[in-house]
Amino acid sequence: MHILILGAAGMVGRKLAERLLREGRLGKQDITRMTLQDVVAPARPANASVPVSVVASDFADAGAAAPLIAERPDVIFHLAAIVSGEAEAEFDKGYRINLDGTRYLIDAIRAAGGGYKPRLVFTSSIAVFGAPFPEKIGDEFFHTPLTSYGTQKSICELLINDYTRKGLLDGISIRLPTICVRPGKPNKAASGFFSNIIREPLAGEEAILPVSEDVRHWHASPKSAVGFLIHAGTMDLNAMGPRRNLSMPGLSATVGEQIAALERVAGKNVIARIKRVPDPTIIGIVSGWPRDFVTDRALRLGFTTAEKTFDDIIRIHIEDELGGKFVG
Amino acid sequence: MHILILGAAGMVGRKLAERLLREGRLGKQDITRMTLQDVVAPARPANASVPVSVVASDFADAGAAAPLIAERPDVIFHLAAIVSGEAEAEFDKGYRINLDGTRYLIDAIRAAGGGYKPRLVFTSSIAVFGAPFPEKIGDEFFHTPLTSYGTQKSICELLINDYTRKGLLDGISIRLPTICVRPGKPNKAASGFFSNIIREPLAGEEAILPVSEDVRHWHASPKSAVGFLIHAGTMDLNAMGPRRNLSMPGLSATVGEQIAALERVAGKNVIARIKRVPDPTIIGIVSGWPRDFVTDRALRLGFTTAEKTFDDIIRIHIEDELGGKFVG
Repeated sequence: MHILILGAAGMVGRKLAERLLREGRLGKQDITRMTLQDVVAPARPANASVPVSVVASDFADAGAAAPLIAERPDVIFHLAAIVSGEAEAEFDKGYRINLDGTRYLIDAIRAAGGGYKPRLVFTSSIAVFGAPFPEKIGDEFFHTPLTSYGTQKSICELLINDYTRKGLLDGISIRLPTICVRPGKPNKAASGFFSNIIREPLAGEEAILPVSEDVRHWHASPKSAVGFLIHAGTMDLNAMGPRRNLSMPGLSATVGEQIAALERVAGKNVIARIKRVPDPTIIGIVSGWPRDFVTDRALRLGFTTAEKTFDDIIRIHIEDELGGKFVG
Repeated sequence: MHILILGAAGMVGRKLAERLLREGRLGKQDITRMTLQDVVAPARPANASVPVSVVASDFADAGAAAPLIAERPDVIFHLAAIVSGEAEAEFDKGYRINLDGTRYLIDAIRAAGGGYKPRLVFTSSIAVFGAPFPEKIGDEFFHTPLTSYGTQKSICELLINDYTRKGLLDGISIRLPTICVRPGKPNKAASGFFSNIIREPLAGEEAILPVSEDVRHWHASPKSAVGFLIHAGTMDLNAMGPRRNLSMPGLSATVGEQIAALERVAGKNVIARIKRVPDPTIIGIVSGWPRDFVTDRALRLGFTTAEKTFDDIIRIHIEDELGGKFVG
C-alpha cells in the first residue's frame, strides 16, 4: 500500500507519518511505500523500513498534483493548507492553496483514469461554523464560516462529497478540534494560548493568558488527531452514505478547567507561571469560535479520542513530547 | 441606475427584465440603462424607454465577465446557470458554468477597483438540500446536495458570503422554490410535471402525471420569483449580517392539492385531461426532493409571495400567460 501525505511537514502530518512508519501498516494492509509532500521538503523520517519519497511542491501550482497522482497512491491524507490568519490576510493566496489546490488534486485523481479511485482523507476545520450558533453544535447545523479559511474548507467538503458521489474518488472530510497541546514554540495565532498555558508552564516558562477563565473551547490531543486520520483512512466509508463530511469528537473545556487540570497533573508551582494579561483583540476573535459539539455521528462511525478528560490531554503531552518529565 | 441581468434569456430573467422596464425603477431609483446577457442573445424588449444592451457571451469563458463589469452596473441579477440534469450529465460543463463562471464574475467585480461594490443578487436553489431531511427544512439546516448542480449552487453561496464579508461586493443568494406554473412547452425535466398538469389541461391538452397524488413539493409562481429578486435587489442587506443566503418563501402542496385547486379554479373538464402514467424513474428522483420549508428568516426580511393558495398560483398563470382565458 502506497500512502501520500500532503502537507507532511506540519505538526499533524509529521506525527501521522511517524505513526504509520512505526506501525508499518494502515488497517490490515502493509505499507510498502510512502510519499511526503509539502511546500518545503518534509524531513526524511529516520530508520524508515519502506521507501519514502520526499517532495517539495507548491500545492497552488496547477501542475503540482499530477506527478504525485501519477504514482497512484492508495490512500491520500490531504493536510495541505495555509492557516486561518494567513488566508484572511492574503485573500488570493488562501483561495489558490486552500481551494484551487484541492480542486487540482481531485481533478488530477479524476484524470488519472484506469479505474483509479483512491481513499482521500481531507482535514477540514470547525471554522466552517461561525457565530451565532448553539452552545453545542450538532451534526446537522449549517455552515456559516466567518473567515475565508472556513469558507474554503467548507467548499472543499462539498467538492469531495460530489466527486465521491460521482464515483471519482472515495473521500471523507473530517473537522478536527483545536489541537491541544500543540508542541513547539508559542506562536501568534489567536488560538495559541490554549496550548501555551499548558506547554510553557510545564517547560518552566511563563505563559500569557489573554482571555478570561470562563472561555470555553473544543480540544483534542495530537494523538487523537492522528487517530482520527487513521480511522478515516481505513474505515468502510459506505456506512456514511453521500454525506462524507463530519465533525470529530473532542473535549469541551473552559480555560479555568484547563488550568485546574494542569494543577491536578503538575501542581501549584506550574500553574503559577500563567500570567493573566487580557487582550481585547483576542477576546473578540475567540468569542466567535465554537465552544462545544455533539458528535454522535462520528462516535457511531467509530471515531474515538485518546483522552477522556483534560488531565489526559496534559498527560499525553508530557508522555509524547516531554519524555514523561516536566519542570515542577 | 444601470442594471445587468445575467441569464436574461431564461424564463425568470425575461420576466424580471419586463417588469423592471415596465416600472422604470428599482426600489426608489430610476433605471437609466439595462444590459441583458445570456449565452444566446436575449430578445431585445419592445418599447424600452431606456437604453438596453443585449450581450451574447459564454459565462464559462474566463473573459466574459470583465467587459460587463467594466460598465459598472449598480445591480447585477445573476441567473446564469445550466440546469440540474445537464450539470449532472456534463460534469465539466456544470462546474465551468455554475462554479467557475460565478467565480470569474466576482473576481471581475473585485478587480474593477475604485470602490466599485455592486449589489449582486444570485439565484440559488433548494437543490442545496438533499435527502434525508426533516419534513420542513428550517433556516439552519445544513447543505447536503445530492447533485453537482446543488453542490455548485451551495459553493457559490459560500463564495458570495465571503466576498461580501470582505467588502468586495454586496451580495445575497436566494433559493427559489420550484417555479409553478412554468410557461412554455412541456419539457423532460423530472420536475416538469408539476407545471405540465396545470398548464396543459388549461390549454385543452392532455398532461401526464408520472407520480402519485401524495407527492408533496415546494412551489412559487413566476410572479413571486420576480418579486423575490426585486426585493433582494433593493432591501438593506445589512439586516442579514454575514449570512447572505436563505430559502425563499413558497407554498407546499401535494399533487392532489394541485389538482383539487385546478378543479376549483377551472372545473372538472379541465382536470379530466390529466392522465396518470406512473414512471418509476421520476418517482425515484422526486422522492429525494424537499417537500416543505420553514422560511421565517425570509419572511422577517420582507420577502413575500404573490400567492396565498395554490388556487392563486393557477389564477396568476391564467392572468399573466393566458390573458385571463382557458379551455374549459
